[in-house]
This record gives sequence, C-alpha cells and structure tokens, in this order.
Amino acid sequence: MARITAKTFTRYLPILDWAKTYNRDTMTSDLVAAVIVTIMLIPQSLAYALLAGLPAEMGLYASILPLVAYAIFGTSRALAVGPVAVISLMTAAAIGNLGLTDPLEIAIAAGTLAFISGVILTIMGVLRLGFLANFLSHPVIAGFITASGILIAASQLKHILGISVHGHTLPGVLGSIWENIGQTSIVTVIIGVSATAFLFWVRKGLKPLLLKKGLKPRMADILAKAGPVGAVAVTTLVTWLFGLNNWAGVRIVGEVPMGLPPLTLPSFSAELWNSLFVSALLLSIIGFVESVSVAQTLAAKKRQRIVPDQELIGLGTSNIAAAISGGYPVTGGFARSVVNFDAGAETPAAGGFTAIGIALAALLLTPLLYFLPNATLAATIIVAVLSLVDFSILKKTWGYSKVDFAAVAATIVLTLGFGVETGVSAGVLLSIGLHLYKTSRPHVAEVGLVPGTQHFRNILRHEVETDPTIITLRVDESLYFANTRFLEDYVLSRVTCDQPLKHVILMFPAVNEVDMSALETLEELNRRLDEMGIALHLTEVKGPVMDRLKRSHFLDELTGKVFLAQYDAWMALKDGQGPLSKAS
Amino acid sequence: MARITAKTFTRYLPILDWAKTYNRDTMTSDLVAAVIVTIMLIPQSLAYALLAGLPAEMGLYASILPLVAYAIFGTSRALAVGPVAVISLMTAAAIGNLGLTDPLEIAIAAGTLAFISGVILTIMGVLRLGFLANFLSHPVIAGFITASGILIAASQLKHILGISVHGHTLPGVLGSIWENIGQTSIVTVIIGVSATAFLFWVRKGLKPLLLKKGLKPRMADILAKAGPVGAVAVTTLVTWLFGLNNWAGVRIVGEVPMGLPPLTLPSFSAELWNSLFVSALLLSIIGFVESVSVAQTLAAKKRQRIVPDQELIGLGTSNIAAAISGGYPVTGGFARSVVNFDAGAETPAAGGFTAIGIALAALLLTPLLYFLPNATLAATIIVAVLSLVDFSILKKTWGYSKVDFAAVAATIVLTLGFGVETGVSAGVLLSIGLHLYKTSRPHVAEVGLVPGTQHFRNILRHEVETDPTIITLRVDESLYFANTRFLEDYVLSRVTCDQPLKHVILMFPAVNEVDMSALETLEELNRRLDEMGIALHLTEVKGPVMDRLKRSHFLDELTGKVFLAQYDAWMALKDGQGPLSKAS
Repeated sequence: MARITAKTFTRYLPILDWAKTYNRDTMTSDLVAAVIVTIMLIPQSLAYALLAGLPAEMGLYASILPLVAYAIFGTSRALAVGPVAVISLMTAAAIGNLGLTDPLEIAIAAGTLAFISGVILTIMGVLRLGFLANFLSHPVIAGFITASGILIAASQLKHILGISVHGHTLPGVLGSIWENIGQTSIVTVIIGVSATAFLFWVRKGLKPLLLKKGLKPRMADILAKAGPVGAVAVTTLVTWLFGLNNWAGVRIVGEVPMGLPPLTLPSFSAELWNSLFVSALLLSIIGFVESVSVAQTLAAKKRQRIVPDQELIGLGTSNIAAAISGGYPVTGGFARSVVNFDAGAETPAAGGFTAIGIALAALLLTPLLYFLPNATLAATIIVAVLSLVDFSILKKTWGYSKVDFAAVAATIVLTLGFGVETGVSAGVLLSIGLHLYKTSRPHVAEVGLVPGTQHFRNILRHEVETDPTIITLRVDESLYFANTRFLEDYVLSRVTCDQPLKHVILMFPAVNEVDMSALETLEELNRRLDEMGIALHLTEVKGPVMDRLKRSHFLDELTGKVFLAQYDAWMALKDGQGPLSKAS
Repeated sequence: MARITAKTFTRYLPILDWAKTYNRDTMTSDLVAAVIVTIMLIPQSLAYALLAGLPAEMGLYASILPLVAYAIFGTSRALAVGPVAVISLMTAAAIGNLGLTDPLEIAIAAGTLAFISGVILTIMGVLRLGFLANFLSHPVIAGFITASGILIAASQLKHILGISVHGHTLPGVLGSIWENIGQTSIVTVIIGVSATAFLFWVRKGLKPLLLKKGLKPRMADILAKAGPVGAVAVTTLVTWLFGLNNWAGVRIVGEVPMGLPPLTLPSFSAELWNSLFVSALLLSIIGFVESVSVAQTLAAKKRQRIVPDQELIGLGTSNIAAAISGGYPVTGGFARSVVNFDAGAETPAAGGFTAIGIALAALLLTPLLYFLPNATLAATIIVAVLSLVDFSILKKTWGYSKVDFAAVAATIVLTLGFGVETGVSAGVLLSIGLHLYKTSRPHVAEVGLVPGTQHFRNILRHEVETDPTIITLRVDESLYFANTRFLEDYVLSRVTCDQPLKHVILMFPAVNEVDMSALETLEELNRRLDEMGIALHLTEVKGPVMDRLKRSHFLDELTGKVFLAQYDAWMALKDGQGPLSKAS
C-alpha cells in the first residue's frame, strides 16, 4: 500500500485540493450562496419527492447528506446535487414497476435504488468508465428531456385537479385523468391554477419589475428564483386559515416528521436488486450526463475543469449517502446549480452549508409544512419542467440529418408512449444501430487524376483522367467487420464489368482502422483479383494502419504494391507500365 | 399490381433464370451430383437429428422439401441445404431451454423453431436486411464455430460411451459424463471407437490409397466422402447379427417410420413463439452467415455471383418447408455443398434430385436403419465437427489486434461455459462494444509543415515547422456522438497550455461524418475558443461533410474560415497574418 501517494488522495478526494486555500472570503461567498440555494431547495425537494411518489420528507433528506458527500468527492465548484425532476420521474417509474403498495416498502425500494445507483456510479468512476455516457447522443438526450418534461407536467395535473391518477406513459396518465375527472376538487383547481399562474409570472414578469424598481440585476434574479417560497407560504396560510383540507378536498402534505434524517439501510434482497438493476443503471447514466453537462457549462465560465471520472465517484457517493439517510436517487440539478453559481459559490463547501440549512429546516420548519397543498408543489414542478420542453431539436435535426431526426423522434414518441426507461433505452440502441448502419455502407468513390495536378477526385464530380487498365477506389470509412462484405461486393461487382483491367488501387487516406475481419476480406479480395489476373495496390495508407498491416502476412501476399502517394501509383502503373499480377 | 414485371419475378424466383437454359447435359451433371450427395446425406441427416435431440427421421424429412424450396428460391448453383451440425446444436439448446419431455411436444417445438426462423429469414430477405449478418465479425464467427465443434464433440461422447448425459455447456456435459461414467457400455465403446477410428482413416488415409490404386482424384475424393455409409452398413450388420442391442446395452436408432414426410403444422402458441423467438433469431443469423459464406466461396470459383438478400428468402422458404414437412431448422452446409460442387452440380436442380433421393430412402430404406447403433452416428458427427475446431485464429488475432483477440477469446470461453446462445450474443455485443470504444477515442495528431513541401505531418513523428500562434490538429476518425466529448476535452486541454495562441485549425481529411452531436460540439468549441480570443478554422473538409455543414448555421457562426487545403490555411494564418477572432 506504499504506492498510495498524496496524488492518489487528491485524485479521489478533490476536497484536499481546494480546502488548502480556503479562507474567510471564500467562506462568505459560499455562505451567501448556501442561504439562497437553501430557500430555493426546500419547496423543490418536497415537490420532487411528491413527483417520485414518496413522502415529502424524503426530498428533504435527499438534500442533506448527499450534498456533504459531493462536497468531499465532487470536482465541480458550483454543482448543487439533490433530487431533480427527471431522476424523480425515473424513480417513480422504477418503483412503479415493482407493484408495491406498503409505503414503508416503497421507501426502502427508493433507498435501495439510490444505493444500487451509487454503487454503479462509484464503480464506473473507479474503472474510469465515464466514456460510456457518450453513447447517449445529443439528439437522444434532447428528445428524452423534452418527453420527460411533458410526462412530468402531465403527471402533476392530478395534483392540480385534486384527483388520483395512475400510469407512467402519456396515454396512461391522460386516460386515467379522463376516467377520474369527475372527482375534481374545484378549490384545489383554484389553488393549483393560481399558483401556476403566479409562478409563471414570477419567472417572466417579476424580474423586469424588480429591475424597474431599481434592484440590482443579480438581486432581482435571486428574488425571482425565490418565488416558489412565496407561493408555498401564501397557499399554506390560506389552506390553514380556511381549513380547506377539511371541507374542500384540498390534499395537503400533512405530517412531516421533525428531526434529522434517520439512519436507514438499503435492502440487500437479491430479488429486489434484480428488479431494480436496469432501472438503476439507466437512472445512473441519465443522472451522470445531466450532472456533467451542467458542471461543464459552469466550469467553462470560470476556465475551470471538471474530471468526469471523479464526478462519477462524487455522484456515486452522494447516492450512497442518500440511501443511508432516508433519501432517494439524486444528481446535479441544472436550475439550482445555476443559482448557486450566480449567487457566488466559490467551492463545494457551499453545498455543505446548504446541507446544514436544509437540516435546520428539517429540524425546525416541518410543522409549518403541514397545511402545504400538494397543488402548490405540483405548480412549482410544472413551471420548472416546462422549460425543459423544447421541440426545436426536431426541426434542427430534420434539416441537418434524417438519421439524427429519426433518433430524436423515436426517443420522444417511445418515452411518451412507453415510459422513460423504454424511451431512453430505445434511443440509445437506435443511435448505435443507425450509426453502425451508416458505417456499414461506406462511401466509396472512384477517382481519377485532375489534369495538371497531383490531386485525385471523384470521377462523377470532376473532369478527370482515367486509364482503362486501372480502377482507383477511395474508401471513405474505416474498415471493420460491419462494412467489409460491402467493400468486397463493391469491388468485385465493379471489376467484373471491365475487361482490359490490370490494376485495382485502393486509396486509404480516410481509413483509420483495418480490423481482423477487414484484413481477412482484403486477403480474400487479393486472392480473387489474382485469379482474374488483376493486381491489388494500396495507396496513402496511414501510419498506424500500416504498422498494423505489417504485423500480418497480408503485405507478403499482396499481388501489387503499397504506394505512399496515389500520384506515385498512377505514374508507375498507367499505360500498362506497372508490374502485372503474379498470376497473369 | 401492374408494376410486377418479369424482372420482379426473376428477382424472387431465380429458378426462372436458370431453368430457361436447362438441358440434357446439365441434367446429367446434376443427377450424378445428386446421387453422390444423397449417399452422403442419409447418415448425416440421421446423425444431426440425433445431435438436435430429435427422432432420426426428422433429419431425413429436413433433407427433402427444404431442398426443393431452395432449388426454387436460392441463388447459389451448388449450395446443398439440410440439417447441419452447428444449427442442430443450437436447436438442441433452444429446445432444451423449454424443459419439455414429451417427444411429440419436442418435435412440434423443433418444427415451430424452423417456422419462426423461416419467417424471420424471409422477412429479412424481402426487407433486404442481409447486411445485419455483417455484425458477426470474422473473429466472433471463428471463435463460435470452434467452440461449437468442441461442444458438439463433447455432447456426442455420451453415445460413444452408451450413457445418458445432460447439459448444453462444456462443464455441464463433462460433469454429467463424469457422474454417469459407471454406466458405460463396453461394447458400445468398442463400436464407437472403431467407427471413429475408421472414419478418421477414411478422411486421412483412404484417398491417398485409392489414388495409388489408380483411381482418378475426383472419384477417390467422392469415395472417401462415402465412408460414413460403410461405417453405418458394417456396424448395423454387426449389431443385428449379434443382437448387441439386447444383451450388450448398445443403443440403436430403432423404428424409423417408413414413408414420405408427414404434413405438419407449427404451433402458433404465443407463449412458445415468445420462448423461441430469440433462439430463432440467433439461429437464423448464424445459419445465414454460414450458408452465404459457403455459397460465396463456391460461386467465386466459377465467377458466378450470389444475391445475399435473395439467399435469405431461399433459406427462409427452406425452413418454412422444413416446418411443414416434419423437419427442423436447416441451412446450407459446408461439406455437402463442396461435395455437390465437386461432383459437378450445375444448377439448383441437383438439390431437387437429391430431395428425390432422400425421399426414396425415407420410403424404402428406413427398415434397414433399425439396428444402426447411435454410437456410429456419433462417430460420424465427431469426425465431421473436429474439422471445425481451429484455434489458429487465437494466434492470428493476438498478433494483429488485441481487440479482435479479446472478441475471439470471449466468444470461445462464453460459448463453452454458458452455451451457444450466450456465446454468440456476447460475441456480437462485445465486437460492437469494442468497436464503439475504439472509435470513441479517436486518434488526434498535432501536425506541422514538412519544410520545403506542402505536406503536414505529426509533430511527434517528424521534423516539422510550427507557429506558436497556431495549433493544427488532424482528427483521424468520423465525428459522432460517441467521440465528440473526447474531441472537445482534447482540444480544450491542449489549448489552455499555450498563451500566444490565436488559431486552432482542425484538419478533417479523414472525417467521413459529422453527426448532430458532433455539430453541436463543434458549435460549443467555437463559442468557447471565441471567449478565449481564439479563432477556429477547418481544413480539407470532404464534400459530403461540407454539404451537410452548409445545412446548419455552424459555418455562419464559425469565427475562422474553412480552407480547402491545409497549406492554404497555413500560408494565410502564419506569423500572425490571419484574421483574428471576432472576440479579440
């Protein structure tokens, strides 16, 4: 163990890095940011717990210890972790699959989901598997986030209407609303709609108003972000004063246990782990992608860098912390991180201070939340997630690439129609499948010499010199198992038409790889052309590809030569000057 | 329907093509080939049915109607379809998964498997999805065939020993043999070992002997291929004469129904289809790959071409034919097709004649098979499949590419350890995964000008000119979702080190694609470099990539320029001559 050096410690414990230079100034900045984020997080944490189908206090618990873990293990200076909308929706879907009804079992399942997700993320971090997140293409993420926003908003309609609704798909949720619309509580609708309207106004109209009143832009911005707290306070007060929960069917948060998070243990039932594993994996990857993109955006603004593999460890330990302290899956949230950043957070210590703030709220404020209407929380969620909905990606991809369009459209439709897990899995598989399909039919151009130059261009696009004894094909793709048969078919079908042919030249300037399958195909092609009395030549082979080819017998068997430049090959072979195939 | 022309007919019915020129000469050649293949197929069909865990007659039935279907719909002139070793093993594994014990149910399940596989293949053919087979890389196929050969040989040891054994994995089979070795029948072992030794000798020693006796090479070859018939005849006779099945525990084929194949219907139980679908899919793809590679090899020898998508239809209809005539999954077999080819088959009609031959055998010869020992059939299988086992691919890939080596080794180990379906699925997924992993970390070279030329080369490999205000990076991979983050990280980490930097040039001669994710990354990179006062330029962008970029706003936002040649960019920008970034 002597090899564990200070550097290893700093790699796994970024806190050692920034704590060295921590001083009173940084602390003041962090404290101010923490106060503002705490005020924003309290209603948000309650609302997202509701969205996940969990007791409100689990949202608070998920905003305490996980923040401390991230402050120790995370590399972003401004990222604020905690419950977020999409992850809460995925938690609801994962728990929904289990068909549980006992609230205690549901809470344990949510904690276990966080624990599995934490273990997956931590292991990925230690094994440096952060690149796996790259397989979520931008269009798939954009489609998924948009569809999730719609699903979340639809799922919250039940709280605005004051009815019970089930379902994790858009048709399911809408159908269920339609069936139960008769039970609508008018007073709940009034509270929900007013709260939603107020929050929309806060978002769009409050800031300009405050600016006109002479507030500084940053202060106006922060006040506008605190809007939900106002809505929570007013609607709670009104509900309590008029006893709306008694006579008007207004559903309220009710009793929230007072005190610090309990120490909880995830379940280690193999059956539960089996049922939750795929959900935890999807949730981990989505959470990681969301969190890293926020962290990278904020880091870039201050010319800082984050370490994606260490971020996995930061998020992993946060989720494990959530699991052992009565919480549920968490990740870095966009809105709260931006607020944290704008409020001046300098180090992850701001997250630690926020944790203390939320802990104080859990200790002292929970009795005040008793009369908080669910409709108010639903309103904060709806207003927050509608900003996620953005269909412009459909237009953008349609114009740019139909393949990418297909991936977005399929992800949106499948997420809405079959739920988040099916949607995102199908999106990833479709992206990979379409990419492989594209590369399995590479662009191959027949080229000729541009007269008076040493350049060779596509004979279909340019006026070029050719020679009836030579065919030159430029292959515009790496050669690997999925496209070798295509190349073989292409070359052989091209060759059978030409009678006086003596040379086939393959130009490899864009071939970055020749795998074993491709090597065997080239060997086969070389043999078959040899049988027809045609020599096979290669030109402009890249260094790494050439190094690789030299390790096989292919170059010994090649009937033709390998030329550095296509022009050299042309000069050597044109007008039948070249060496003929050994077979002829 | 007026658009169905003669050409459409010929596409889907290749028989219309070759039947036009069919004459007495071709017919004679086809008849001779058919007789020889029939003699070879009778013991083989029985043996493979045994391997699949099915009654012997199903092997014969699978060698009648499917051959007729292929003669009508197939495009290869010499391919001989029927039961083959690997597909029989996969059938055994698929049926084994169902846990059936009733022989009738097992037979129905085997027919249903053939039917589903036939439907899958036919649909793939009509939709021209033959390229899907390309995702089985050569190393995975080689590893799978080798491991299957070992598994098959191991599974046949039970017949040589005369004991009952279960299991579809190597540890399973060997463990089961070890447990039951006490029940070994000595006389069965004597028959089995003698038959195996005889067949090995036929394969290695008979042909040279016949050649020495003055036979023509082709005749000697064909006689050697008929060896199994001799082994069948002799061991059947011995078993009958001495009543070995009564007192010596020699298991025999027993009663084989006499007559033509019965008309059977596959099951349409949704549950059974569900259980068999994945197996049928794997079996279809493996069968197609095996069959197409045999067909292509033989077609190339006569400068003929096969049509892979039509081959799917040929194999699909063959399997449907097998399903409705008491058979089980079939595909084009290597050994029998080579014999057919060598014996002079000119058209698929040879397959039709072979079908008549096998039908006559089913009508007339089945009583003679009553005393045929299972051990003899096992011996024919063992000798046939050991030629599939070839570990040289391990050495070949080890030298050439560790990634390909990993794919072969994993396929072999997983097939042996967890069965054929797990093995081949894991092999395919691993090939794709490793390919994506490789392309997700593209080779990026920093280049400089080779003095006195217009060429730019890697600064690490060559003595080149550079300029402190310019960094030129050549990206050696298409840019797509899996590697865009890598590129962004690479460029930004490279840029932060250099202070006087004004220009970043990305050279794209090997970039064959820029997908939506990559486009957004380039836009982001452009913005971030702009914030640092650095201009981003592109050079040597390929035509199709440029066409695509022009459809986005990227070129309007680009802070630098797009140069046709890297040298032009160099001349325009070096020594601080270039236009600065708009931000600076």
